[in-house]
Amino acid sequence: MLTDFGSEDVYVGVMKGAIATFAPQVRVIDLTHAIAPGDVKAAGFCLEMAFSYFPPGTVYLAVVDPGVGTARRAIAIETESALLVGPDNGLFMPVLERTSALLAVELTEREYWRTRSPGPTFHGRDIFAPVAAHLAAGLPIEALGKPFDPHTLVRSPGDRWVVYGSGVRGHIQYIDRFGNLITTIPGEAVSSRSWQLATGTWTLPGRRTYADVPPGEPLALIGSHGYIEIAVNSGSAHLHLGLPTGYPATVNFLD
Amino acid sequence: MLTDFGSEDVYVGVMKGAIATFAPQVRVIDLTHAIAPGDVKAAGFCLEMAFSYFPPGTVYLAVVDPGVGTARRAIAIETESALLVGPDNGLFMPVLERTSALLAVELTEREYWRTRSPGPTFHGRDIFAPVAAHLAAGLPIEALGKPFDPHTLVRSPGDRWVVYGSGVRGHIQYIDRFGNLITTIPGEAVSSRSWQLATGTWTLPGRRTYADVPPGEPLALIGSHGYIEIAVNSGSAHLHLGLPTGYPATVNFLD
Amino acid sequence: MLTDFGSEDVYVGVMKGAIATFAPQVRVIDLTHAIAPGDVKAAGFCLEMAFSYFPPGTVYLAVVDPGVGTARRAIAIETESALLVGPDNGLFMPVLERTSALLAVELTEREYWRTRSPGPTFHGRDIFAPVAAHLAAGLPIEALGKPFDPHTLVRSPGDRWVVYGSGVRGHIQYIDRFGNLITTIPGEAVSSRSWQLATGTWTLPGRRTYADVPPGEPLALIGSHGYIEIAVNSGSAHLHLGLPTGYPATVNFLD
Repeated sequence: MLTDFGSEDVYVGVMKGAIATFAPQVRVIDLTHAIAPGDVKAAGFCLEMAFSYFPPGTVYLAVVDPGVGTARRAIAIETESALLVGPDNGLFMPVLERTSALLAVELTEREYWRTRSPGPTFHGRDIFAPVAAHLAAGLPIEALGKPFDPHTLVRSPGDRWVVYGSGVRGHIQYIDRFGNLITTIPGEAVSSRSWQLATGTWTLPGRRTYADVPPGEPLALIGSHGYIEIAVNSGSAHLHLGLPTGYPATVNFLD
Repeated sequence: MLTDFGSEDVYVGVMKGAIATFAPQVRVIDLTHAIAPGDVKAAGFCLEMAFSYFPPGTVYLAVVDPGVGTARRAIAIETESALLVGPDNGLFMPVLERTSALLAVELTEREYWRTRSPGPTFHGRDIFAPVAAHLAAGLPIEALGKPFDPHTLVRSPGDRWVVYGSGVRGHIQYIDRFGNLITTIPGEAVSSRSWQLATGTWTLPGRRTYADVPPGEPLALIGSHGYIEIAVNSGSAHLHLGLPTGYPATVNFLD
Repeated sequence: MLTDFGSEDVYVGVMKGAIATFAPQVRVIDLTHAIAPGDVKAAGFCLEMAFSYFPPGTVYLAVVDPGVGTARRAIAIETESALLVGPDNGLFMPVLERTSALLAVELTEREYWRTRSPGPTFHGRDIFAPVAAHLAAGLPIEALGKPFDPHTLVRSPGDRWVVYGSGVRGHIQYIDRFGNLITTIPGEAVSSRSWQLATGTWTLPGRRTYADVPPGEPLALIGSHGYIEIAVNSGSAHLHLGLPTGYPATVNFLD
């Protein structure tokens, strides 16, 4: 489960109650519920970071849904090793760049919802959680509604990274609790070359791990998620550099 | 489980350890642990919001207990579809306005506690969690102590809403992480009528869902919990209106 | 599980994915993930507070690992009733003052890791979680690597408390969400004697429970964790006294 519902309120607990009602044996694991309200891009990145570390057959239930109650589609997607359930607003695109959608259906079969007449504001509880529970309990995805062409899935505009002169240019896409600034530039872009990262007025050495620079010093490295990340050894790059999400960053090669 | 123990400390984990000790097979679902310390009213509202979304037979373990170590009763209550365990301080009253108490017992049988001589400060770990575990594992509620008349349960004073002139008057009872201001006025009060909500210097249109007003605009609607709620489309009513819990709000009809 | 990974990001969820991959039947309980980044002392205290409230055979997976990617050892320890998995940086010392290490091994057998070539920054996911999963599923600890002498475990310097004149002197080791200041002085030090606690300009009465002083008044008592704790009835000692972690506190006897 991944949502922007926070853990202060009971909304996530209520979704788990709905899951337990329809699939008592299913185990639920929280990815995060601390996505900023409506931040579909951060949600997509978090889902991508977690994807591939779960057993085959896992159902990913993701509800960051600023358009709840409007005409946006409610969907389920089957990939080679997983099932995805949530709103059609671009949330699953980063995952679907790593693996392909074998089948996509619009959730229209109300018998698998919590109620046939759900309210307009909490589809997580009334539609998505019950549907995810049924899938986890073994219901075939085809039962949930009519298939549609995965190419019609909503996607966010804009390139994530581009080759730029002799380097690679992207931007900061996520800031984690350690204050690491995670860019959109994939680690494969630097492979075994010698590199540095330029962002704002900073030029940072490309290294292997945090302890490769003295405590308090900033560096760039390939993070555990596979992207180039800006960090400070035993400190916070977020506090040290003060750069926001969306800020450009460029990898330049030294060899 | 619902507590005011937060998730920074290990208190909730320790309660789950106590549950796992007495009932290893029992599944635990968190409602919230972020209730403000000692805020029995907010806890009661949260419990009411979650109640009815869990399978029959669920044990609701709720520990918001500013009177721990004093003479307040430790109790368990059986309703038609659920069991409630916690302190007798009004916490379960909102739930018991929706369903009735079939049996109430004071927790006096020490053999179902973690220890026969619990300390004075952490009954969640020493009494409530073990008792909830035993109930979830099938122990009849009668075994836990002597029954008492549910009419003697502690209740909070004050009406939650009243008919007021040609409208309905209540107050803000809870503010959620999205900044929605949830009032004490039940959605049934407006049924299919045309209405607006007055609070402070604001008069807000009664609508069906967030997207029924332009982004950034405030509105009132029946929330997913069944109460009238003040919201801002793609924003925070808490930041927009700046009204605290307890502030009055009145529904007026337009037809 | 106990980490300093927070619950905003997906790091904890990813570790649970790794556990579910290697041991699908294992139940995971969170102690806390809100340890301040790299605060090994707070982590050790939290682990000690929780230890002994879980069933025999529990695996404690603790990852607060500022030295990740350096030469610090990755270890597993067997005690009489439990298994401990994490980095060798002093994290387990408070627990091991209460129970002894029967066997300690360095984690070198890569077949029990998530991958034979883990990255340098996220051993929680790549080494510790998979190893904990294998242990929880029944793998003997000897299989994980070569045994070493538990006396070589890294420990933090400094006494936690000392007899001082006619009293006992320690310091504040942890501040919980209620604002209770938990000292390093064990409750046994005061047993059934009459005592008070001096810290900064304050002299606080030694009492049994919060409600033994009027609301808003500070006191000292033996907390549920077994240590002397400074509290305010229905308030926050942290806000009331304003003393930080590490600040000295002395118990003086009145009889």
